[in-house]
Amino acid sequence: MATKEKALDDLFHETLKDIYYAEKQILKALPKMAKNAKSEELRQAFEKHRDETEVQIERLESVFEMLGKSPRGKTCEAIQGLVEEGKEVMEDFKDSPALDAGILAGAQAVEHYEISRYGTLKTWAIALGMKDAAKLLEQTLEEEKKTDVLLSRLAETSVNQKAA
Amino acid sequence: MATKEKALDDLFHETLKDIYYAEKQILKALPKMAKNAKSEELRQAFEKHRDETEVQIERLESVFEMLGKSPRGKTCEAIQGLVEEGKEVMEDFKDSPALDAGILAGAQAVEHYEISRYGTLKTWAIALGMKDAAKLLEQTLEEEKKTDVLLSRLAETSVNQKAA
Repeated sequence: MATKEKALDDLFHETLKDIYYAEKQILKALPKMAKNAKSEELRQAFEKHRDETEVQIERLESVFEMLGKSPRGKTCEAIQGLVEEGKEVMEDFKDSPALDAGILAGAQAVEHYEISRYGTLKTWAIALGMKDAAKLLEQTLEEEKKTDVLLSRLAETSVNQKAA
Repeated sequence: MATKEKALDDLFHETLKDIYYAEKQILKALPKMAKNAKSEELRQAFEKHRDETEVQIERLESVFEMLGKSPRGKTCEAIQGLVEEGKEVMEDFKDSPALDAGILAGAQAVEHYEISRYGTLKTWAIALGMKDAAKLLEQTLEEEKKTDVLLSRLAETSVNQKAA
């Protein structure tokens, strides 16, 4: 490895491991967020996104396969920090009318992390000529964007009103 | 404090402290990213965003003032994780043609964190009837979105090609 120059394919592989780890953390965090949410709509949104996340993990496993690598995560400090902040809000605002607003905001921060990572991975896949991988990453990217829009709508139409 | 129920105004204040801390970390990180970037365009983008960040910090200070609070940050684990990941890429890909692609991707992850936080703070300011605060937060939100679009364009038109 010392003689081979690290290039975009390595960076792609490293970032794939990062988001693979992140998705697994998200898969664990979503049921806790659903359990804590008071709004039925917010709970359902988290449960739906949990199911989506399972499929997104399978897509990442397919991309690892296309690279000829076995699926393996690597600690992603960013998602650890995001999940940690979400936990803090759930504790600090446990009995507050603003609890749902706080959980929802944390979920949107996670969505945006994923949007940036999948956007990056998709454009790298294109630059590397990996069309099939780019297609899978694009599918997930669109799902993350839809989830973010849904959460914004929930925030504006109900969650923030109840909190204010 | 124990008798007062924590509500949306508290959550707004806590999140303001979070992004205030984050912006100060970003202000420190951007010159390092500019110094490491090999592409002249990317270096300029980081320098321009550094100057924008100074103004964004001043806007946050104005919002603290509108709340009747002094500007104070609080450790934000998410930004610490994001900055840490950026540092790792700069070390691991130091002599790689993919270095700029990695720095750029890290910067976009930071932009997306900010987009989610400013989006949230803006809608909370509206829910709380703080119109002037909402306007300031909206200004920064638009700048962050523009920076993200600029970085995406740089990635697609030059940085990824050089890396692949």
